[in-house]
Amino acid sequence: MSRVTARRKTTRLSPAGRIERPDTLAVEEPLEIRVDGRSLTVTMRTPGNDIDLVHGFLFGEGIIASAEDLVTARYCAGTDSEGHNTYNVLDLRLRNPVPIHTRNFLTTGACGLCGKTALDDVRTHSRFPIPHDAVSVSIDALTDLPKQLRAGQKLFDATGGLHAAGLFTTDGTLLVLREDIGRHNAVDKVIGWAVRENRVPAHDLVLVVSSRASFELAQKAVMAGIPILAAVSAPSALAVDLAAESDLTLIGFLRAESMNIYTGEHRVT
Amino acid sequence: MSRVTARRKTTRLSPAGRIERPDTLAVEEPLEIRVDGRSLTVTMRTPGNDIDLVHGFLFGEGIIASAEDLVTARYCAGTDSEGHNTYNVLDLRLRNPVPIHTRNFLTTGACGLCGKTALDDVRTHSRFPIPHDAVSVSIDALTDLPKQLRAGQKLFDATGGLHAAGLFTTDGTLLVLREDIGRHNAVDKVIGWAVRENRVPAHDLVLVVSSRASFELAQKAVMAGIPILAAVSAPSALAVDLAAESDLTLIGFLRAESMNIYTGEHRVT
Repeated sequence: MSRVTARRKTTRLSPAGRIERPDTLAVEEPLEIRVDGRSLTVTMRTPGNDIDLVHGFLFGEGIIASAEDLVTARYCAGTDSEGHNTYNVLDLRLRNPVPIHTRNFLTTGACGLCGKTALDDVRTHSRFPIPHDAVSVSIDALTDLPKQLRAGQKLFDATGGLHAAGLFTTDGTLLVLREDIGRHNAVDKVIGWAVRENRVPAHDLVLVVSSRASFELAQKAVMAGIPILAAVSAPSALAVDLAAESDLTLIGFLRAESMNIYTGEHRVT
Repeated sequence: MSRVTARRKTTRLSPAGRIERPDTLAVEEPLEIRVDGRSLTVTMRTPGNDIDLVHGFLFGEGIIASAEDLVTARYCAGTDSEGHNTYNVLDLRLRNPVPIHTRNFLTTGACGLCGKTALDDVRTHSRFPIPHDAVSVSIDALTDLPKQLRAGQKLFDATGGLHAAGLFTTDGTLLVLREDIGRHNAVDKVIGWAVRENRVPAHDLVLVVSSRASFELAQKAVMAGIPILAAVSAPSALAVDLAAESDLTLIGFLRAESMNIYTGEHRVT
């Protein structure tokens, strides 16, 4: 099996009608990097060439200066719930123990980190389960959202490229739009607005992002109790899995005339 | 002055000829978030709506449940080299001190974090200064690179959206291409390949990315001694500043017939 892509069911709505079909998505899984027994960082990555990835990461952080500085790189024996090695934890040994000067440290004891661990983590921390039948949104309202988002992207107009996130009511009214060089920041800014406006849990809102829908963005929607997340581009396989488990309606490739509904189609009317 | 965009000089090459002009770029600056005196994380963000950003970030991490949980948010009095407040460090006080369960911690003592601090950090840690006259690349070779990169993106074809990074020789030969859901991971994978192939410092290579050129990607190029970074989309203002300071040739909006050269034009022939 290729671990870099995965197939998930989708419902495609377009002028040609409604078609159910499998869709090929990029796999997104956490990779935990441990150096000399110490958990250094976790990055959400597409599996494959992990050994190159850790060399490049450690090199960029100034932790190694050459390939010789990394003596061994071994997948930790952690297993998922079915007893398979997750291949998501790399134990590294360095030639010279160095004082690690890096920005991000992780606090976890889990060996065998996998997408499931990431899903469990969201389930544990989510305060606001999404009500199954709370809201619905019409196809017409949905297909109008990217146009509204784009019209509000003033920084995009000026700079030729920036991420945006917007919160809409289910009748398609824009409440808040934020742009940022980081798409997670743009989402944090609109959800932070909702927190400050006392609109969380946001069980009646739709979150629209100008980008792909990664696990991290789906996680932020779930944490805020937002029932519908629509992305202009593709979701990752793990984002779809999280949406399915959290009863989040996840829509990808949202355009003026078409969309792919990956989960929660009952909220689209 | 608007802090969300900044102007930088660029040289635009296109069938219409060579034009020097100012270009409006998105500002990218580090925001350090401190909770109860403890440095929690740094995110590279576009300034503006920082108070929303920290509410959304803390909420998403499960650290606050409502706006009331965040008692005060105050910009730290840190100043840049000209004595101005950087507005890049937020000191937060929480209503209930909570055991912080989050993924990323920062190890820095710097108050007054600013883009300049980020630039200094790269200068301090870079092992391989880029030679001023080492290499050059022709316009024809450059404009062919996006096509080659795109042709190698097998996962993009399958999934409809994934980042890619490639290392090329200066005559336009592709050496290695990697795709990943994270653009920093794609870059780490190709630089990690170069480290393992003993090609670092990569003073003779061109790094091409399918995305925007953020500070982080420019930093990775500088750390590896790569003299030319070309991005299919826009650079951030801070990436341009880092390139100028590091003598990195930075090209944005690289297309089949045109490009913007922000720094290091002497390497383009």
